[in-house]
Amino acid sequence: MDFSLRMRYNGGKQPARRAIGGIIMNKVRFGIIGMGVQGGLYASILTGRQHPGRGPLPQPAGCVLTAISSRRDQSGRAAELGVSYFADWRALIDSGECDCVILTVPHFRHHEIAIYAMEKGVDVLCEKPAGVRASDVRKMMEARERTGAKLGMFLQQRTIPLFRQLRQIIDSGELGQLRRSNWIMNTYWRPDSYYASAAWRGTWKGEGGGILVNQLPHYLDLWQYLCGVPEQVYAVNRHGAFRSITVENDVTVLAEYPGGGTGVFVACTHDPMGTDRLEMDFDGGKIIVENSSRATVHRFRQREPEWNRSLTADEMERFVSSPDHHTTEILDEGLAYGVSHARILENFARHIRLEEPLVADGEAGLAQVELANAIALSGWLKSPVSVPCDSARFDEELQKRMDAE
Amino acid sequence: MDFSLRMRYNGGKQPARRAIGGIIMNKVRFGIIGMGVQGGLYASILTGRQHPGRGPLPQPAGCVLTAISSRRDQSGRAAELGVSYFADWRALIDSGECDCVILTVPHFRHHEIAIYAMEKGVDVLCEKPAGVRASDVRKMMEARERTGAKLGMFLQQRTIPLFRQLRQIIDSGELGQLRRSNWIMNTYWRPDSYYASAAWRGTWKGEGGGILVNQLPHYLDLWQYLCGVPEQVYAVNRHGAFRSITVENDVTVLAEYPGGGTGVFVACTHDPMGTDRLEMDFDGGKIIVENSSRATVHRFRQREPEWNRSLTADEMERFVSSPDHHTTEILDEGLAYGVSHARILENFARHIRLEEPLVADGEAGLAQVELANAIALSGWLKSPVSVPCDSARFDEELQKRMDAE
Repeated sequence: MDFSLRMRYNGGKQPARRAIGGIIMNKVRFGIIGMGVQGGLYASILTGRQHPGRGPLPQPAGCVLTAISSRRDQSGRAAELGVSYFADWRALIDSGECDCVILTVPHFRHHEIAIYAMEKGVDVLCEKPAGVRASDVRKMMEARERTGAKLGMFLQQRTIPLFRQLRQIIDSGELGQLRRSNWIMNTYWRPDSYYASAAWRGTWKGEGGGILVNQLPHYLDLWQYLCGVPEQVYAVNRHGAFRSITVENDVTVLAEYPGGGTGVFVACTHDPMGTDRLEMDFDGGKIIVENSSRATVHRFRQREPEWNRSLTADEMERFVSSPDHHTTEILDEGLAYGVSHARILENFARHIRLEEPLVADGEAGLAQVELANAIALSGWLKSPVSVPCDSARFDEELQKRMDAE
Repeated sequence: MDFSLRMRYNGGKQPARRAIGGIIMNKVRFGIIGMGVQGGLYASILTGRQHPGRGPLPQPAGCVLTAISSRRDQSGRAAELGVSYFADWRALIDSGECDCVILTVPHFRHHEIAIYAMEKGVDVLCEKPAGVRASDVRKMMEARERTGAKLGMFLQQRTIPLFRQLRQIIDSGELGQLRRSNWIMNTYWRPDSYYASAAWRGTWKGEGGGILVNQLPHYLDLWQYLCGVPEQVYAVNRHGAFRSITVENDVTVLAEYPGGGTGVFVACTHDPMGTDRLEMDFDGGKIIVENSSRATVHRFRQREPEWNRSLTADEMERFVSSPDHHTTEILDEGLAYGVSHARILENFARHIRLEEPLVADGEAGLAQVELANAIALSGWLKSPVSVPCDSARFDEELQKRMDAE
């Protein structure tokens, strides 16, 4: 290890933000635990490097990478990045070189490492999903409460302006009450060779699930971010649909919202021409989002209950194409690859330094896992379940599948 | 009654097709029982009259209207049309003036009148739905078997070239196996004034249901016509959603097909900017039908299982926009208003005279009601049910609601 290098990064118990006159004053020192695909990406972003196949990446302000940890020897990579390397994640946390750690280890281990870090006064930015089991995520949340540490989630699609604008429109109440959502999200085509590329992929023991755990967390999160948390779900999940895997890779969910609305969510990994279409129907408008990149927002000239009182069906049929019926706006502000990740890093750094509200907090991470758990459990039990579902029952059913694998 | 007129139409026990040298040789003589909105439309079509607000209507070949029956006095209308009038439907059937009858009476009465007609040797063309209860429709089918009479269904949307072409494409097997269907069918906006316009509308006692019985039969039929019959459904149905009615006017259905595919069907009467979008995903292609009038048919260059064996996820991501991935065809052949009804009439006449296969037979009518019953029952029981469902249970649950109304 290059000790002088670590010194440069103010390697001590004092976080960088308290250093005076140093080159990293006001920078939050990040460590990365787990240097797989995602860990490598975050290391590239934090150090302003080009990521293979992705071109230049934006470097987040107020952040600095000081250390990485990986079971596989990454000391060469650490030297190249100019940071410390720890084979043992505990040593990284204990080193005092990091104000916070990014967890990109297997999902099953998130809570264990997060709790250790928080108890040592190190804040945690956790890769999605927060965990496989909501019960594990709740343990992580309890540690946050107990320690007062910070806990953020890498649910970076929330930073995409399109989704933030939609959330603002919905939150403003101008579209009124949600009556329906329908999201077909079939763009995650994954062949058998993908599942065979790592032993943990597509297994209960290795990943604790399939599409619900690996591909969908962002979209389950966005679905709730925009439409709210359902109170009940019923799901038909296909396990190993057209693939040689044991976990679910095809889900169809029927959700019920507290206000009486309903929702549908459809996803699979075997559609070679994937559809991504989200429709949200409100009593004051309709939003259609295509390819998660272009939204058509229709604002009705008045609320549906008013038309119910004043129009006949025939009048509505003629009226619906008139400019007096609604206005239409197109939203399509996206982000270049890596920018959303960088924004999460910047937000987390400002959250630590300035108490800026988190884009995605522990509650968001937990809610996403609770939804995924409920969908999985409903599919296993072949019956509707409440959201959040009975965690003990979920854990038991998952364990059965892990044991049988 | 104008007896000479009836004579002109070969008014006797012998059907017109057996008459020799008459002006109506080879014409099938139709009676209409029930002269509400639909009965009036069919009378206009059969007599080549303009229908109020709809413009000129096509006159079906090989058909002639000879009599109408209605509880409300329609003798004036009959004289105007140049046909016989019977206050009592039994008298119409017994008169010998009709080879067949069109039933446009309240749904609950279809089977009773159909059975009477078939037992008298009079064929039956039944308005959709075939009945409220599958158990009633089965009684109608038994009478058909017993008597050898003909039984056809007014499921005229099957005659629309767009849907016939899609059915042919699907039947040909070129698109392979169905993996998914998703139909949002929200175009039937109906205000409270519509439900208040007749005492039977939107009631259990009067109509035996809401959107499933009144607005959706064609679409439930087309869904099965294109995608096949599900083996199980789970439904969330809202009763009186944003309307002052007791029956369901908002349904969300999750279906499971025998081959492992899944389907979603969504409909309501309270969307003032109704979406009509059907997506069908096959392992060899994808079909998207918009507004029931324009289909985009994507044919993959090879089946998905082949790509699963040969492509990585990254390769597919780049490949999907290449012309080597698929071809696209647009289909949009529709029919002017009234033509589909006329085709059903012509088809039924040729079925009687020439044994031409029916566009929609009793089995189709039964299958549509069985699906509607299963969806309703699943909603009532809040659990998945098989298709067809337990009819005794459906009848019992419906009766409870009729009694409580």
